[in-house]
Amino acid sequence: MLLQPDDIAQLPERQRAAFINCLSGFKSANLVGTVSASGQANLALVSSVVHLGANPPLLAFISRPPSVDRHTLEYLRDTGFFTLNHVHEDMLLAAHQTSARYPRDVSEFDAVGLTPCFSALHPAPYVEESRLRIGLKVRDTRPIELNNTVMVIGEIIEVQLPGEALPDDGFIDLARLDTMTIGGLDGYYRVMRACRLSYAKPDRAARELEE
Amino acid sequence: MLLQPDDIAQLPERQRAAFINCLSGFKSANLVGTVSASGQANLALVSSVVHLGANPPLLAFISRPPSVDRHTLEYLRDTGFFTLNHVHEDMLLAAHQTSARYPRDVSEFDAVGLTPCFSALHPAPYVEESRLRIGLKVRDTRPIELNNTVMVIGEIIEVQLPGEALPDDGFIDLARLDTMTIGGLDGYYRVMRACRLSYAKPDRAARELEE
Repeated sequence: MLLQPDDIAQLPERQRAAFINCLSGFKSANLVGTVSASGQANLALVSSVVHLGANPPLLAFISRPPSVDRHTLEYLRDTGFFTLNHVHEDMLLAAHQTSARYPRDVSEFDAVGLTPCFSALHPAPYVEESRLRIGLKVRDTRPIELNNTVMVIGEIIEVQLPGEALPDDGFIDLARLDTMTIGGLDGYYRVMRACRLSYAKPDRAARELEE
Repeated sequence: MLLQPDDIAQLPERQRAAFINCLSGFKSANLVGTVSASGQANLALVSSVVHLGANPPLLAFISRPPSVDRHTLEYLRDTGFFTLNHVHEDMLLAAHQTSARYPRDVSEFDAVGLTPCFSALHPAPYVEESRLRIGLKVRDTRPIELNNTVMVIGEIIEVQLPGEALPDDGFIDLARLDTMTIGGLDGYYRVMRACRLSYAKPDRAARELEE
């Protein structure tokens, strides 16, 4: 199947949105937790979290246009902090349900039955049911003029995850945490590890790392 | 396990890089194909491709700093086009091997044994072994000053994928294509579909879509 500019332009809006959303490949599944200046908690499912760099430790996500976004962008700008919480299969329905359009005075935590929990370092709510929780300080919110979305960049200031100590090699196997991945607008996938591969060098083939 | 700013700052560099790279969740697995003005082909594995929007159809990825990047950024700026090619399990070793530091006059296609193929629409090389190939016109390259990376934004001008017709609902099941996902710096994962969920509304629980 071959689609060129005219084919893409002629797709009906919903079919195009669903199709184009599949093309980037598998996406991360995170709940963004924020709180308003007056204390109203907000939770939103995002599939656009991306690693920016390890030093300083930066993550980013793409927010919908301010005219469409329901509170996340406003709250994280007001308070300066947000959380990211991995989505696992046993909390999937609740996580998906956060994308419904609830009124401003309704907390998605209450509406979908997830539990907020807090850190002494910042006011943004974590999701207790998530097994990997990240607290971030907002470093930048950059408009992307091409389609009026906004790139939110946060610096990691806290990580909460299972286990007593960080492995020496720093590798966290997300499949063991049952973290899910997203395909397209509404597809949710389980993940199984295939392999880890050694650092690639020009003069020898990469090999599988044993553990 | 709880890591706060001092804990993160004190991690040895490699452990920190590996750890922070796990935190965003599962990542897309794509090969970026570019060509220099003089015709030298280049291929690089990236895990940072992210969906920006469907109308116009935009994808983005994060390139390492221009001082570190090996040719991809330079070539796509020179020619104005690049391709994204999904990585599947049967081409994983070759895809991973593209991240080795080959000299400028070596094409990664030749070095790792992948096959370039071309479209009439633009000069950037596709990867024939990939089952989902996307041609993009560069729309913007934006420096991210916080860590000197660069966000490359492309508009989709061509999609090549299996099948005779696009499904009415626009959904492409990436698990059927054996597209892989990446965890951390060097973990590769297989994916199995768990479910698709209906559009979330405040007044009713989301349900599984049947097909």
